[in-house]
Amino acid sequence: MSDFKRLSKKISDFRDARDWKQFHNPKDVALSLVLEAGEVMEHFQWKNAAEIEEHVKTHKEDVGDELADVLYWILLMSKDLNIDIVQAIERKMKKNEKKYPVKKAKGKHSKYTEL
Amino acid sequence: MSDFKRLSKKISDFRDARDWKQFHNPKDVALSLVLEAGEVMEHFQWKNAAEIEEHVKTHKEDVGDELADVLYWILLMSKDLNIDIVQAIERKMKKNEKKYPVKKAKGKHSKYTEL
Amino acid sequence: MSDFKRLSKKISDFRDARDWKQFHNPKDVALSLVLEAGEVMEHFQWKNAAEIEEHVKTHKEDVGDELADVLYWILLMSKDLNIDIVQAIERKMKKNEKKYPVKKAKGKHSKYTEL
Amino acid sequence: MSDFKRLSKKISDFRDARDWKQFHNPKDVALSLVLEAGEVMEHFQWKNAAEIEEHVKTHKEDVGDELADVLYWILLMSKDLNIDIVQAIERKMKKNEKKYPVKKAKGKHSKYTEL
Repeated sequence: MSDFKRLSKKISDFRDARDWKQFHNPKDVALSLVLEAGEVMEHFQWKNAAEIEEHVKTHKEDVGDELADVLYWILLMSKDLNIDIVQAIERKMKKNEKKYPVKKAKGKHSKYTEL
Repeated sequence: MSDFKRLSKKISDFRDARDWKQFHNPKDVALSLVLEAGEVMEHFQWKNAAEIEEHVKTHKEDVGDELADVLYWILLMSKDLNIDIVQAIERKMKKNEKKYPVKKAKGKHSKYTEL
Repeated sequence: MSDFKRLSKKISDFRDARDWKQFHNPKDVALSLVLEAGEVMEHFQWKNAAEIEEHVKTHKEDVGDELADVLYWILLMSKDLNIDIVQAIERKMKKNEKKYPVKKAKGKHSKYTEL
Repeated sequence: MSDFKRLSKKISDFRDARDWKQFHNPKDVALSLVLEAGEVMEHFQWKNAAEIEEHVKTHKEDVGDELADVLYWILLMSKDLNIDIVQAIERKMKKNEKKYPVKKAKGKHSKYTEL
């Protein structure tokens, strides 16, 4: 079994053991996704590049925990909506390759609509 | 190679071919994480449960694309910060098991501090 | 003096007495705006309409505090960027009137691009 | 009438003329608040201090529009929840004064719990 399937199963087993599926409608789950992404971001607020580097060194597990929380909701939402997330990202990467051809996009951080 | 490692490499290869690492400081990457999570959430806004179900049916690829975008930034940030995201989520799930014991948490959606 | 000017002055005086302007670059201030908006949103998560109504009754001051926090950052950012927020919203409302003519928009919650 | 009351009335008149109140439950309105705050933040992403300064000069109206959109939702939610936002921010500023006494907080950007 792939890591994604294994983790996805682990997470939904954890959820179902607690009988939490009743709360997990897509809208509220998406709120969690945003709020947890916010907690990742909060780690870097009010800090310059050097302070961020230092912070990541001294808080690696904390930052990892927050990233894990975002991934948790990604995997759970994918499962609930019956979306194969590995397939989805493979397909999206193909779209990205077309939207951002190396020749045009190299060294530029513009949106594809402005390239 | 695990799916995570393979996708993570695919994403950073895509990035490096475009010479974009220069832009990818953790703070701005975290902004992307939040903004892309917002785009997932936007799919469900102003809709009731039935409308969301219908929307997911008719826009499955779009929703999958947005979830993929969030995963893209999770994988990229994990790589840049040298965080093993699979290990991180395994560890976080162990913490969650302790924070939310089945006995106390079953059927309740309170924060662990309020159980 | 208008309420906006008065409150805006109160907030920047509060900030300057603490010598915090040095931290308040627009990017980090915008992060605060998003994070505080998230705290408003969190009040309504996992709740249905009836639960939200009840929650607002019993937590009115808390919700008001969170809305105030968002307004705090709006006023501070406007001041720092030398934007007259009252003028800005009057101008934006004129744009909205054009984007969403009553005839087309009545009773529909589509984006103006889809009307 | 204060600017807040006047703008608040203008916004709810605009909304009611379009018969949009039916969509404006607090949860979805809070989503708008977060998403619009995200659009403010997006203006500053991938930019260093000098680029932000330049961007604000050349895009002042755009940034003002986004700030106005956030304020729009603040005023609308306050009205719908029957919260006096001016009173709320005055009260919150008093709490902030206590949480962050000048003596302790001067020049430090720590949370009040860490002062």
